[in-house]
Amino acid sequence: MSDPRLTDLARQLPGLKLSTDPGDLEHHGRDWTRRWPPAPLAIAYPGDIAEVQGIVRWANAHGVALVPSGGRTGLSGGAVAAHGELVVSLDRMNKVLAFDPVDRTLTVQPGIALEAVHNAAREHGLVYPVDFAARGSCQLGGNIATNAGGIRVIRYGNTRQWVAGLKVVTGTGELLDLNKGLVKNASGYDLRHLFIGSEGTLGIVVEATLWLTSPPPASQVMLLAVPAMDALMKVFAEARHRLHLEAFEFFTDRALHHVLAHGAQAPFAEAHPFYVVTEFDACDEAAEAAALGFFEQCMEEGWVVDGVISSSEAQAAALWRLREGITESLAKYKPYKNDVSVRISRVPAFMADMQALLAEGYPDVDVVWFGHIGDGNLHINVLKPAEVDYATFVAQCEHVTTLLVDTLERHEGSISAEHGIGLVKKPWLGSVRSDAEIALMRGIKGVLDPMGLMNPGKLL
Amino acid sequence: MSDPRLTDLARQLPGLKLSTDPGDLEHHGRDWTRRWPPAPLAIAYPGDIAEVQGIVRWANAHGVALVPSGGRTGLSGGAVAAHGELVVSLDRMNKVLAFDPVDRTLTVQPGIALEAVHNAAREHGLVYPVDFAARGSCQLGGNIATNAGGIRVIRYGNTRQWVAGLKVVTGTGELLDLNKGLVKNASGYDLRHLFIGSEGTLGIVVEATLWLTSPPPASQVMLLAVPAMDALMKVFAEARHRLHLEAFEFFTDRALHHVLAHGAQAPFAEAHPFYVVTEFDACDEAAEAAALGFFEQCMEEGWVVDGVISSSEAQAAALWRLREGITESLAKYKPYKNDVSVRISRVPAFMADMQALLAEGYPDVDVVWFGHIGDGNLHINVLKPAEVDYATFVAQCEHVTTLLVDTLERHEGSISAEHGIGLVKKPWLGSVRSDAEIALMRGIKGVLDPMGLMNPGKLL
Repeated sequence: MSDPRLTDLARQLPGLKLSTDPGDLEHHGRDWTRRWPPAPLAIAYPGDIAEVQGIVRWANAHGVALVPSGGRTGLSGGAVAAHGELVVSLDRMNKVLAFDPVDRTLTVQPGIALEAVHNAAREHGLVYPVDFAARGSCQLGGNIATNAGGIRVIRYGNTRQWVAGLKVVTGTGELLDLNKGLVKNASGYDLRHLFIGSEGTLGIVVEATLWLTSPPPASQVMLLAVPAMDALMKVFAEARHRLHLEAFEFFTDRALHHVLAHGAQAPFAEAHPFYVVTEFDACDEAAEAAALGFFEQCMEEGWVVDGVISSSEAQAAALWRLREGITESLAKYKPYKNDVSVRISRVPAFMADMQALLAEGYPDVDVVWFGHIGDGNLHINVLKPAEVDYATFVAQCEHVTTLLVDTLERHEGSISAEHGIGLVKKPWLGSVRSDAEIALMRGIKGVLDPMGLMNPGKLL
Repeated sequence: MSDPRLTDLARQLPGLKLSTDPGDLEHHGRDWTRRWPPAPLAIAYPGDIAEVQGIVRWANAHGVALVPSGGRTGLSGGAVAAHGELVVSLDRMNKVLAFDPVDRTLTVQPGIALEAVHNAAREHGLVYPVDFAARGSCQLGGNIATNAGGIRVIRYGNTRQWVAGLKVVTGTGELLDLNKGLVKNASGYDLRHLFIGSEGTLGIVVEATLWLTSPPPASQVMLLAVPAMDALMKVFAEARHRLHLEAFEFFTDRALHHVLAHGAQAPFAEAHPFYVVTEFDACDEAAEAAALGFFEQCMEEGWVVDGVISSSEAQAAALWRLREGITESLAKYKPYKNDVSVRISRVPAFMADMQALLAEGYPDVDVVWFGHIGDGNLHINVLKPAEVDYATFVAQCEHVTTLLVDTLERHEGSISAEHGIGLVKKPWLGSVRSDAEIALMRGIKGVLDPMGLMNPGKLL
């Protein structure tokens, strides 16, 4: 703690937990991108809102940049601290503060893991329906900062839809208590929605009140083998028409290859170009008959060539693992990730263009793609060949990304569907937001964070 | 057109329809509040986005304030032009531009009536689920500017939830094309949500892409007679627990009195203190049995003393008219309106406090209240006694509002649930938004409307 600024921080906030331990700096200074060597000034672990405010006021006095830090499962470098920033870890602010059975809300601190929110909701016979594979380690504050999506968006929307109230500390240390759990509140600009998805660049989420909902009806999970890309959209259209969908995900044979290599059980005797995992309501015989009818029609039309339907929760979980295990199975290849979206109606044309582009751009490279087809969201993972050094690999990938961005612009898509812009996607922000929009975003940041201390260099 | 500024406008935009006809100034210069004498400079009726941009650029050049103007069914004075503003009427921009069956979106111009949106959705076998009594004359642009709520919020949320894309012209004449119909788009601050509910103070909505949804299952409507206020919340809790609610509205005996005097048929032989209109899914025998079980239990517990259930669409419509006819039946009394909300869990305590306060504040005045109890939203209409002049009446009402605001603050409620702040609620904005929030709102307005020309004096 030889830095005089830290000495002053410790003096101002005597109870604040602070660390300059090299292991902590390394651990809290980066996220899952692993691209930027972490180099924070120190890590602060505030225990309450007042300490967060104190930290922000201290940062203003000393001109120190802050990086709000959650579970750091982000894939866009939004939580990286590589330039002497103070990392504000919310790890210690991880409690459930309140549950209201009439409002059906859960009030939590920002450092709580998504899975802990799921569990707390379930204890009260309700669900918090935002869900994705990083549930065990990602934190709610980070979910809000990126407007996290995931695998149930098709039914439940993104995180945005479930935030009933938000307490944030702005770039000047001001505490805002936004919306306070009201269903209807037409009293001026909804700053809550401005903070959701702002990637820590406007302030720090210090408390959230989340809406919960009733558990969905009993469901079944179906895995389908799909022979061709154009069949994929037909299967989706038919499923949406006949079933009450909770999820509709797809992945390629390359994705399945890696998941199987990572220990999963092969679902079919043969390999197929595409796979779909879909979950849908199956609360009664009529719903189950509809599912069977859907499957039979897909087989008859030739859109699907094989399939399996879950007959137990364990089997449903096993089918889901084939999709949810992809990211983990690829981690060792240090994949370069694209996370793009188009309108659902544009998916077929975009996928055709994209497939041609990837085949040309990465002739000898393993490219694994999968995604949330019902939301227009595709994840493209490019795996680093062992013989290529990381910097060369990233440069190649960024070249292909630039080509991909042209295609995306033509299809009016977004370079970031749910990962955020962070550091990784910054060069292409202008492909999805106009110059005027970016100028307005900068202006708005100037209002909420006049000194420019909140997660600087990210997003904008 | 003797005003040189108008001459210049006509010269800049030769095709623009402009009017200074006294009847038009009177008609387009005010909304349903009827409190401020209209005095606009002129009325412009742009036919396309380019004309809207041209108007805004002209306004910047001449420093003329603009009032965006839709169906002017607002109840907070948000569309009043009383100080020489140019009214920008969107009446001519009232078309459906596109429908996409895969995205399930409808793209419309801002001047389209809500009911025309309902009809267009229905033509495609889908629904746009935001609904309220002014549907025939209110316009979508105004719905977005106030984040309109209405009678189906309990199931479908407010307007905000249904806006997939938004084109707006900012205070500098810049056209923004926000979100473009994407389901997932984590690419920086979501300016779309900033404009929704901003009451025309940041710019003008010139196009919207709306999400549509599947029609709800067959439903039934039930009217219940409730003997006491505390029973009301018990009925709601039971209904929410047992039924799949689409609407849950209540009104008082005074409200029914006025609707009956206005020509409706009495539903019960006797009068009762409170009435509930609720609509719920009744797609099969099990659902109908649940409704009957709910009603029987409410009767047994004494929470309900009489009831009627719709057995036809005509009867359902007749029951709804008892609730939806209230506003029209009161119009001739020039009511002073409060539109307040609290969290659902706070409704009983707030209603008790409010009832005491109204009895004391308006000892000899007819006070009619009703609302969306499932959303925590109450409408309080104070009727002007014939012998009191309007200015005295408003002054009395504002005194009571100030008392009501104290109660609201204690219950963490909002002075505007769905009507907006406009001119009417401005004195009490500080009761629901902190000084810091209001300062940030002003700062944000400065970024989007640096000359302060967009609906000045409203909201802020």
